[in-house]
Amino acid sequence: MHKSKIEDESEVITDGKPEVWEVEPSRAARNCRNLIREIVDNLNLEPNPEKPVIALSIGDPTVYGNLKAAEETVQAVRDALERAIHNGYANSSGTSEARQAVAEYLSRDGVQFQQEDVILCSGCSSSLEHCIAALADGSKGQNILVPRPSFPLYWTLAEHIGVQTRYYNLIPENNWEVDLGHLESQIDHNTAAILINNPSNPCGSNYTENHLRSLLEIAYRHRLPVIADEIYENLVFPDQKFVSMASLDAYVPILICGGLAKRFLVPGWRLGWIAVHDPVGAFEKIRKALNALNQRTIGSNTLVQGALPAILKNTPQSAFDDLSEFLCSNAIVAFKKLQEARGLTPFMPQGAMYMLVEIHMDRFPMFNSGLEFTRKMMEEESVFCLPGECFTIPGFMRIVLTVPMMEEACLRIIEFCNRYYTK
Amino acid sequence: MHKSKIEDESEVITDGKPEVWEVEPSRAARNCRNLIREIVDNLNLEPNPEKPVIALSIGDPTVYGNLKAAEETVQAVRDALERAIHNGYANSSGTSEARQAVAEYLSRDGVQFQQEDVILCSGCSSSLEHCIAALADGSKGQNILVPRPSFPLYWTLAEHIGVQTRYYNLIPENNWEVDLGHLESQIDHNTAAILINNPSNPCGSNYTENHLRSLLEIAYRHRLPVIADEIYENLVFPDQKFVSMASLDAYVPILICGGLAKRFLVPGWRLGWIAVHDPVGAFEKIRKALNALNQRTIGSNTLVQGALPAILKNTPQSAFDDLSEFLCSNAIVAFKKLQEARGLTPFMPQGAMYMLVEIHMDRFPMFNSGLEFTRKMMEEESVFCLPGECFTIPGFMRIVLTVPMMEEACLRIIEFCNRYYTK
Repeated sequence: MHKSKIEDESEVITDGKPEVWEVEPSRAARNCRNLIREIVDNLNLEPNPEKPVIALSIGDPTVYGNLKAAEETVQAVRDALERAIHNGYANSSGTSEARQAVAEYLSRDGVQFQQEDVILCSGCSSSLEHCIAALADGSKGQNILVPRPSFPLYWTLAEHIGVQTRYYNLIPENNWEVDLGHLESQIDHNTAAILINNPSNPCGSNYTENHLRSLLEIAYRHRLPVIADEIYENLVFPDQKFVSMASLDAYVPILICGGLAKRFLVPGWRLGWIAVHDPVGAFEKIRKALNALNQRTIGSNTLVQGALPAILKNTPQSAFDDLSEFLCSNAIVAFKKLQEARGLTPFMPQGAMYMLVEIHMDRFPMFNSGLEFTRKMMEEESVFCLPGECFTIPGFMRIVLTVPMMEEACLRIIEFCNRYYTK
Repeated sequence: MHKSKIEDESEVITDGKPEVWEVEPSRAARNCRNLIREIVDNLNLEPNPEKPVIALSIGDPTVYGNLKAAEETVQAVRDALERAIHNGYANSSGTSEARQAVAEYLSRDGVQFQQEDVILCSGCSSSLEHCIAALADGSKGQNILVPRPSFPLYWTLAEHIGVQTRYYNLIPENNWEVDLGHLESQIDHNTAAILINNPSNPCGSNYTENHLRSLLEIAYRHRLPVIADEIYENLVFPDQKFVSMASLDAYVPILICGGLAKRFLVPGWRLGWIAVHDPVGAFEKIRKALNALNQRTIGSNTLVQGALPAILKNTPQSAFDDLSEFLCSNAIVAFKKLQEARGLTPFMPQGAMYMLVEIHMDRFPMFNSGLEFTRKMMEEESVFCLPGECFTIPGFMRIVLTVPMMEEACLRIIEFCNRYYTK
């Protein structure tokens, strides 16, 4: 098909074809793994063709079309597009106006951010990537502490650059609060940072001020900086109050990661941020490092940056309230229903978009693992939940609370459990 | 100002303040350097307050407002926004539709790309980052070959992950073609890839088919894959023809990097791509590696992805022609004018948006370097060009051809040279 036009007398090419030529990827690229992808691909999922699929697995709130970005959010981009001045390169950490808007948005509960404290990134994934890369040194065998269970991106980002992840346990019965003793026991002389995710994916937990304060005490005692993944900031149920780690006024330097993805329902827009909270002046070099890391690929889309001040100012509280109420009502439906399911224990969340459900595997002896359980449930009921293995918590599954057909999904899960539950 | 609310009896805190606490960045972050930024910041530029600044230094075609994205390009995003279905996560390598559109756009001159060959990234900088990271292994002491002169991003991206850059020379008098002997002499057993940038920043060169073929012969002989930075694809002057390396039908695996930034005049939109051209089946593992690397931070903005098919189909040829003609006419103005400047030798470009000008430093003995020359020119004439040091070619300066006031800029440069030229 392809025929070389290169004449190279020094090589013997049999049949006009060169010998086998295979390019090997770098070790770093080989170490770049997506745990969820690997697990899900290995499940070879086949839904029941007689039942429409309900994907309780996808952490994208826009996927079913029932949750939409507010008109004000969209209008802001429309206006930015018409201004026709947001097509060029921005400063790699973002335009002044956009950074100032984030600084104002995050200045609440007694915290003040300046625009220089804000670095805009291509989505919160990039924010986390830069924070981990700036703080932790793979070449020195350093590690970061991350929660178990947690979203596997932390592991992916760290592992890829040779940084180890050490897991500290969360306690399901205690609203997924951190096992403080265990956290402290995981710290060693190679620990570079503690990562805290609140509200949590996959737990749906929302920590109290007191609990966050206890975490900061440990960070302070060990002089460890904190990466606070607050991508679900303020996405908590109506009876809850979100507390940012930055608002606790402790002597601990914190990198707050956030973005538009979840609360503003536009994950594809890739607008993330890092807000540097540095009450002790410990982060001077880290600020430079974060800016340098961001300069490699020049941050986030400038149209969205142009829209950002209006998005953050004009998106009405009612949009956030509607979203919280919908998620909460779905959580109540799922919690009540799945309490009836034999062999399952749901854990009521307080925010974010998820609920974890324990599968009492001893009641389902025909399944060797939660992987098999979830695979079979997809095969028979066309309902798919990510197995706990994706979040390093086998024996659980994660339910996404954004879907419109929560009740139907739960009924199918109950039926499936009834079918296989063994006394 | 900040007062710790943490009570930690185990620590003695003098005056309520902790001992000095400084967090050190990782080695990788410290190695992440922006050469242009470092050089320009050290120049401490001060323009002449009596003359308006003309920045011939900024490679952003939108900065003076004279070059604008085509109405069709903007309309495509407007339409995508109104469809309200492009706000969620895409596949991390891009939506099928957007990848298909790029595959069709690049399928020309006998090359066929499929959508699976295309990976969308957050700007062409990310495309380059992924290609270098996938092919070259810093932990093994590998290197990549890059042109001298070249845009320093290659060096930044490589250095940061421990990959060495080895420079091969370009020959100014020969339209900046590669010194083939020198290129070949730079290859060693640690060389992982050859990076070729055509059309070139900063040279403005556009290579002939024959020359590109000669480069591929060397790559083939040494079984080295090629990274083809074609971000200026088809951005060549009216009498020129752009030849993509993929169209040469050689037995060499090539990663083509490109994007919307330059030809479509929207660098801030951060829509880049990698097109995998693999006539010998050498890139199976590299495809996986590139996808894995992109999964970390989930590619590019979905609004622009939603608009991409229409952008690539509807943006009229006349928009590209207008841009080429404008750049060409500015190049002719600058070339003619600067030939009159004492002590300078301009090199006529054939494409991209740049011209390199040699500064005969022996004629300006009062300046120790091109850095001082350009700094002083800014101070007196308010005209700033990036010194060749930014592109590893001291004794030159780069002129950006996108500005509307090219003639005025050249007159000021001539005056400056007349003032300091020494026989």
